[in-house]
Amino acid sequence: MIGIEEATEIVLSKIRDWGVEDLPLEKAFGRLLREPLIADRDFPPYTRVTMDGIAIAYSAFASGQRQFPIEGLQAAGSPQKTLQNPGHCLEVMTGAVLPKGTDTVIPYEEVRIREGVAEVIPDEFKQGKNAHLQGLNRKRGELIVPSGKWISAAELGVAATVGKSFLAVAAWPKVCVITTGDELVEVDAVPLPHQIRKSNAYTIQALLREEGIEADLYHMADKPEEISSVLNSCLDKYDVLVLSGGVSKGKLDFVPEALADLGVEKLFHRVRQRPGKPFWFGESQERNTVVFALPGNPVSSFMCTCRYLKPYLRKSLGLSATNPLSACLAEDFSFAPSLTYFLQVRLEYTQDGRVLAYPVAGKGSGDLANLCDAQAFLELPEDRTDFFKGECFPCWPYVSPEKAFSKKQ
Amino acid sequence: MIGIEEATEIVLSKIRDWGVEDLPLEKAFGRLLREPLIADRDFPPYTRVTMDGIAIAYSAFASGQRQFPIEGLQAAGSPQKTLQNPGHCLEVMTGAVLPKGTDTVIPYEEVRIREGVAEVIPDEFKQGKNAHLQGLNRKRGELIVPSGKWISAAELGVAATVGKSFLAVAAWPKVCVITTGDELVEVDAVPLPHQIRKSNAYTIQALLREEGIEADLYHMADKPEEISSVLNSCLDKYDVLVLSGGVSKGKLDFVPEALADLGVEKLFHRVRQRPGKPFWFGESQERNTVVFALPGNPVSSFMCTCRYLKPYLRKSLGLSATNPLSACLAEDFSFAPSLTYFLQVRLEYTQDGRVLAYPVAGKGSGDLANLCDAQAFLELPEDRTDFFKGECFPCWPYVSPEKAFSKKQ
Repeated sequence: MIGIEEATEIVLSKIRDWGVEDLPLEKAFGRLLREPLIADRDFPPYTRVTMDGIAIAYSAFASGQRQFPIEGLQAAGSPQKTLQNPGHCLEVMTGAVLPKGTDTVIPYEEVRIREGVAEVIPDEFKQGKNAHLQGLNRKRGELIVPSGKWISAAELGVAATVGKSFLAVAAWPKVCVITTGDELVEVDAVPLPHQIRKSNAYTIQALLREEGIEADLYHMADKPEEISSVLNSCLDKYDVLVLSGGVSKGKLDFVPEALADLGVEKLFHRVRQRPGKPFWFGESQERNTVVFALPGNPVSSFMCTCRYLKPYLRKSLGLSATNPLSACLAEDFSFAPSLTYFLQVRLEYTQDGRVLAYPVAGKGSGDLANLCDAQAFLELPEDRTDFFKGECFPCWPYVSPEKAFSKKQ
Repeated sequence: MIGIEEATEIVLSKIRDWGVEDLPLEKAFGRLLREPLIADRDFPPYTRVTMDGIAIAYSAFASGQRQFPIEGLQAAGSPQKTLQNPGHCLEVMTGAVLPKGTDTVIPYEEVRIREGVAEVIPDEFKQGKNAHLQGLNRKRGELIVPSGKWISAAELGVAATVGKSFLAVAAWPKVCVITTGDELVEVDAVPLPHQIRKSNAYTIQALLREEGIEADLYHMADKPEEISSVLNSCLDKYDVLVLSGGVSKGKLDFVPEALADLGVEKLFHRVRQRPGKPFWFGESQERNTVVFALPGNPVSSFMCTCRYLKPYLRKSLGLSATNPLSACLAEDFSFAPSLTYFLQVRLEYTQDGRVLAYPVAGKGSGDLANLCDAQAFLELPEDRTDFFKGECFPCWPYVSPEKAFSKKQ
């Protein structure tokens, strides 16, 4: 049985490149950019008025002039006007081009207008104020967003500004989730006493949806022929197979054998961790497909998806597979077996900028309900038994801070 | 001009209840639950085998017996069998019902099977091991997930388990984003020198999409009749109007007047903050609609969406409107004007469980590109000028930690 470092290393050594696809701008949100966003013009593209008011030649103000006859109006969206007389002014609107012959905008708040003449109230005023200089933020041709970044709202805005109505984004793999187990029935069924409803299919699908992946769902009965035929067709159709159940040592666990018969090489089976010990991982080189066969217990398959499958997908996109978050134990905790323990924790974000982890221990890997009370897994190393309040460990959250449960106000 | 506390209080005093809708399970992911999830059966519903092996009556083992003739097999998904002879055993598969007459499962790893007889290897074994007792996690009728929680992958799994193929979730408001400004052209247009492409519509729409809201987009030219007619029809059709631009003091800023004419009461205009000073907020009691009229500068409208509109939506759902995250300045920073400053920062999650904020100052509220380099706004209070390394302030992230930029490995 291998440890989690070795398991992680093996999983991450099997990353794939699923290529690039072009999407319309509005569909690209949440995807990974696969082209650089370059300024097609200066940012801003013209010296831009940032306050409503009057535009003047500062030299006139500097020489003591305070009364500026109004020559006209420079609206946003109109071609640039020219101040004809350097002792005059033009009214200007936010977003407009700064008129030729002017360099400073005095806002309406600091101006009194009477009979076509604007009087500037303050005695001092800074040259160039309220004019956002052409090219100040970025020059034409400059890189704004590098390839390989997630497309959040800000990147979408930049893409729109530089005229990208289509974006090249990383293609996601085709993924399916296959459940096994004759005790499982559909959600809308009334289970017999020895049956339970399917849930892993939905939790794993939802965890993948957070990444933007729509996984297809399949179920296989515990029958060798059915298992072979479903696996064979899925190996052809999908890039990543995620199995739930059927990988323990039981007489009716036909999955490892069926995978072997179909040419899927086992890379490991069983990891020194709780939950998730029976985790099986393999690949079919021939069909260029990897197989994550996760234990059927709900907490096990959930944890393995967060801890192995998601990092695998991220690293396949060229991103860091390491979780950036650490959290500090808020209470002492002990775990005796020589296994890496993925402790379920509730997170608290403190006002002094710390992340605290409160153990929500639960009752084993079958305790699905407990996952709803916790928000993350805290990864406690296998070579220790006692873990103390204040110690920090890698943390794998599955609920974002603002989506954690908040009481009614 | 009011401060941010007062602005926040006014905005949050105008929350609405948009009711409840029923969604199929697979569409409910990411929404807010509006019914409690109750255990329809015990969790687990039967005493469940958690390892493949043999089920025995522990009393036989305790009395010294080590050889157990195998009576048969209890498969997962089969009705419960009964051990006929208390000195025998039944082979059992993970997920199966524990057979009547047995109370302990000894896994295959600790058993040697020869000619139909299982020999238990260890001398000691704990009674009840590898049997997950019926009702251990939750009793039938017990509350598992309270109403008012976000539906993440874990809640979806519980909903499936208790047989909910439809879920009652909080309905979202109907929202539209209306841009103004004659300088704006479409993304696929080639702008004239005095024009720029629309971007705020896409950024605000994307920020709302993160909440699960699909906002419709409109554009109004700087013409009083067009503004009146678009606003009038949108006030009828939508619950929340988000305007971008047209609220400064300019001659062509017809929006506040048009809103007043349409019976929208101004609740405030201008807030002591940077960016976002010209923020206008109002409501039409008659049409039960609120109007967020945001300044047209890209950073201003972005910040106001994160800081006012999103908390408004959250509080309307009955959630806390307060951001749970604080971050600590990683460098000294100064800001002189008597305004609350929303400093753009890059976040770093340290191994000792802290959140550090690195200033990414940018070049004013027109600097859209800078939003891509930062990940959050740090809210610096207006009554101070100097802020020191190590001090912590409220933080409004718009990129989640795992979606922050990560270099290729």
